[in-house]
Amino acid sequence: MSRLLVKNIIAENIMDVDATVKGWIRSVRNSKKFSFIVLNDGSCQDSLQIVVDDVLPNYADVASLLSGSAVAITGRLVKGGGKVQSIEMQAKSIEIIGRVDETYPLQKKATSLEFLREQAHLRIRTNTFGAVMRVRHHLAMATHEFFSKRGFFYLNSPIISGVDAEGAGEMFTVSTLATHASKAPKTKEGNFDFSKDYFGKETYLAVTGQLEGECYAMGLGAIYTFGPTFRSENSNTTRHLSEFWMIEPEVAFADLDEIADLAADYIKFLISYALEHAHKELEFLMSREDSTAAKNHMEILKHVRDSKFHRVTYTEAMEILSKVDPKVKKFEYPTEWGCELQTEHERYLAEEHFKMPVIVTDYPKEFKAFYMKLNPDGKTVRAMDILVPGIGEIIGGSQREDNLERLTKRMDEMNMQQEPLWWYLDLRRFGSVPHAGFGLGFERAIMYITGMNNIRDVIPFPRTPKNCDF
Amino acid sequence: MSRLLVKNIIAENIMDVDATVKGWIRSVRNSKKFSFIVLNDGSCQDSLQIVVDDVLPNYADVASLLSGSAVAITGRLVKGGGKVQSIEMQAKSIEIIGRVDETYPLQKKATSLEFLREQAHLRIRTNTFGAVMRVRHHLAMATHEFFSKRGFFYLNSPIISGVDAEGAGEMFTVSTLATHASKAPKTKEGNFDFSKDYFGKETYLAVTGQLEGECYAMGLGAIYTFGPTFRSENSNTTRHLSEFWMIEPEVAFADLDEIADLAADYIKFLISYALEHAHKELEFLMSREDSTAAKNHMEILKHVRDSKFHRVTYTEAMEILSKVDPKVKKFEYPTEWGCELQTEHERYLAEEHFKMPVIVTDYPKEFKAFYMKLNPDGKTVRAMDILVPGIGEIIGGSQREDNLERLTKRMDEMNMQQEPLWWYLDLRRFGSVPHAGFGLGFERAIMYITGMNNIRDVIPFPRTPKNCDF
Repeated sequence: MSRLLVKNIIAENIMDVDATVKGWIRSVRNSKKFSFIVLNDGSCQDSLQIVVDDVLPNYADVASLLSGSAVAITGRLVKGGGKVQSIEMQAKSIEIIGRVDETYPLQKKATSLEFLREQAHLRIRTNTFGAVMRVRHHLAMATHEFFSKRGFFYLNSPIISGVDAEGAGEMFTVSTLATHASKAPKTKEGNFDFSKDYFGKETYLAVTGQLEGECYAMGLGAIYTFGPTFRSENSNTTRHLSEFWMIEPEVAFADLDEIADLAADYIKFLISYALEHAHKELEFLMSREDSTAAKNHMEILKHVRDSKFHRVTYTEAMEILSKVDPKVKKFEYPTEWGCELQTEHERYLAEEHFKMPVIVTDYPKEFKAFYMKLNPDGKTVRAMDILVPGIGEIIGGSQREDNLERLTKRMDEMNMQQEPLWWYLDLRRFGSVPHAGFGLGFERAIMYITGMNNIRDVIPFPRTPKNCDF
Repeated sequence: MSRLLVKNIIAENIMDVDATVKGWIRSVRNSKKFSFIVLNDGSCQDSLQIVVDDVLPNYADVASLLSGSAVAITGRLVKGGGKVQSIEMQAKSIEIIGRVDETYPLQKKATSLEFLREQAHLRIRTNTFGAVMRVRHHLAMATHEFFSKRGFFYLNSPIISGVDAEGAGEMFTVSTLATHASKAPKTKEGNFDFSKDYFGKETYLAVTGQLEGECYAMGLGAIYTFGPTFRSENSNTTRHLSEFWMIEPEVAFADLDEIADLAADYIKFLISYALEHAHKELEFLMSREDSTAAKNHMEILKHVRDSKFHRVTYTEAMEILSKVDPKVKKFEYPTEWGCELQTEHERYLAEEHFKMPVIVTDYPKEFKAFYMKLNPDGKTVRAMDILVPGIGEIIGGSQREDNLERLTKRMDEMNMQQEPLWWYLDLRRFGSVPHAGFGLGFERAIMYITGMNNIRDVIPFPRTPKNCDF
C-alpha cells in the first residue's frame, strides 16, 4: 500500500480508497468501542482523524499510545463525520513504529513558547512551530521567486570575511588558534599572531554581504544574497539574534527611488505569497491563545499588500514626531533634527501615525555607513529604512557612493583605513555606475507576517548571548 | 526612454523601436566612419552590438573608450548584419557613465583563470565567470524547485554550533575572545575560559546541518538545508574549500534505497534544469580555449540525465577494482576489502569502469560516521556515496540509526561523549522513526555540470588556507 501525505489527501480530496499514512500522534481519545487518533505528518497544518475499531488485534496497545508516538496506519479514507474534518480514515491495521513514554517533554497540551525554547529540538512537533516554520519556508520560496523572476541572480556572498564591513566592530572572530590558546603563536603583547592563523590574518563572521554584492552587481547587473549574517552585540531583546538571515539585493544603474519601490514590492509579494500558500498556517497562528497579534491581523496584512507605502524624509519624520502631544505619547529620546530615530519613534510612525509600513529616507550622514551617497545638501545621505508596525525597522538600504573621491573623503572623515577595502574602491575606479540596494532581516519579516512577537520563535535554532545549546 | 535588458531584447526579439541599454563595454572596434561597441549588461551570456556613427557629437570620446567602461546608449534596435547577432542597435546618443584607464586589470583579452582568482572582485565582468555564476544561480533555483515541489521544507540549520557533528575535529572556533587574546579570561593552563566567551562555551562553524535536519524531519516529515558549511582542514587541492555550500535533505520514514533514488533524481534534475535555463552559458564554457571538459561534455550531460545510475555495494566495488589489470591502471592505494575507497578508485569507477555516475552503498562502518544504520552483517552500514566522472564523490548519504541502544553503543565504541548530543539522542527516545538523508556539495555539482576543473572558480569568493583577501 503506497503511502499518502495528509496534504495530498486533503488537497486532492482523496476518498473511498485504501491508503497508508505515516506520522506522529497528536492526540488519542478512547471511547467504548472506538479510539480516535489525530495524526500529523508535518506535510501541512491539518491532521487526519483516524477511527480505530476495537476489533483490531493490537487495539489495546494502540489505545494506550501517548501523544508523540510514531505510527503507520493503513485503512480506508472516507467522508468525515465532523464539521471541520472533511475526510477521515477507518483503520484496518496499525503499526507502532516509535513510542514515547511519560518523560516526553511535550506531553501536556499547554506548553508555553518559553518552555518550548528549551526544547528547540522537539518544538517543531507542535502545531505552532509547524505553522511558523512552514510560513518561513514559503517566505524563502517567495524571495527566490520574486528576485529571479525579475532577472536578479542569487549570490552566495562569503561568510568568513577579512573586513569589518559596517565598521561597527560587533564581529565574531573565526580562528583555529582559539581552541588551544596557550599554545597559539603570539605577538610580543601576548595577543594571537594572526599571520600564523588558518587564513594568515584575523577573520570574522560577515555582518553583511553587501560589499561583495556590489562587486557582483557590477558584472551581473542585479543580484541578491540570501544567507546568514552575524552580530556579536550583547542584545538580549525580543528582536535581536546573534545569527540571522538576510536578503540583500543590489542593482546596478538604480537609484534610491527605484530600490525603495523594489523593497515595497518585495514586502507586498511576501505577504501575498504567504496568504496564498500558508493561509491555514496564518489562521492557526492568529487563533492561538497567547497570540499577541491584532485580532484583525489578516485584514491588516491584506491592507498592506494592497496599499502604497508612505514615504517621508527623515526631516519630515522628525517634524511629525516633534509635534506629537506629550499627553498622547511621551518619547524617552529627543525628536530634534540631528537625533537618531529610536525604536519608539519608528514604532510610533508605523503604528500610530501612518498605521502602515513607512519608508523614511535621507538620514543625516552621521548615523549611516560610509558607503552611502551624499545628498547635494552635504548633510544627509541617500539612505532609506522601512518601518513596520509591531517591529520597527525591517529594511535598511541606500544608494551607494559611486564617486571614488567622495567615498575616500568620507572614509577619511570617519577614520577608516582604505587599504583593507582596496577591492571595494576598485569598483569606483573601473567602470563605476550608480547603484543601490537594501537588506531585509528575514526573521523580522517572518515575525511581522506571522504575528509572533519573539524573534527566537521564528528561527529553528536561535543563537543569542550565552545561548548555543543545540 | 525606458531601459531594456539585453536578455529581453533577444528573448522577445525586440526590433524597429527606440530603446536605452546600459552596461559595460566588452570591446570597441573603430573603422573609418563607425565604431562598433559590444555591450554586456550581465543579464545574459549574449552581448549587444552597437553601431556608432561618427556624426555623434561625442564620437571622439566614445571611440577612445576602453573595455570595461560603463555607458548608457539610446538608439534604434534593428536586424543585425552579422550571422550570429540577430539584433543590433544604431546609437543615437551615448552617455559615458564610468570610465576605466590603462590600470584596469582586465584589459587584456587573454586573462588566465589563475590571474582572475587574484581579481575575485572583478572577474564576474568576464564572459567565463558571468557564465559560471549564472549556471550557479540556476542550479540554486533548481534545488529549491526540486525539493519544494516534492513537499520538502527549506530549513536554515544553524551556522554557529556547539558540537562537532562529524567528530572529525576540523572545525573553526567562533569567539569574541580571540581579538584581544592577552586580555581574555583564561584557565589555569592558560587556555581560554570559554565559559566567559560570548555563548558561554566553545562554539564552532557548523560542518553539517544534518543533525538539526533530523530534528526537523521528525516534525515536518521532509526537509532540506541549503547553506554554508565549513572545514578547517589544510587541503590545498582543486576540489576543497574551507567554506562551501551544501544541500542536505532529510526524510522521515525513508530508507537508503529511497534516498539513493532521490539523490539520483536530484542530480538529473540539476542537469536538466541547467540545459534548459543556461544552455548558452554551458555552450560558452565548453568552447573556452582552456576548457578541460570533454569535447562531448554536453552529450555526456544529456546521457547522464536520461540514464539510470549504476548501483554497487562497497564490496562489489572493491571486487571490480581488485580485478583491474595493473598494466591498464595502477592504483597507489590497496583495493582489498576493509581499505578506504580513495579518490583514484572513485574516479576509476565513474570515469573508466561505468563511465557514468555510480552509487556505492554499504561501506564498512569504520570509515563512516557514528549515526549511520548498522546492517544485519554487523560490519557494514547503510551508507551511500555518489561518484561522478571528473570529480569523484559528489554526494554522501545514509540511513540513520534510529535505535537508541545501537546508536549509543556505537558512540561508546568510538569513544564519543553522549552528553553534548543529548538532544540528538532524544530523537531516538521519543517517537523515533526510520529516516535517511544525504549531502550534496554544491560547488562540486557546479564543477561537474560546467566542466570547470578548479573549485575556486565556481564560488564567488573562495576561502582556502591562507586565502581570505576579499
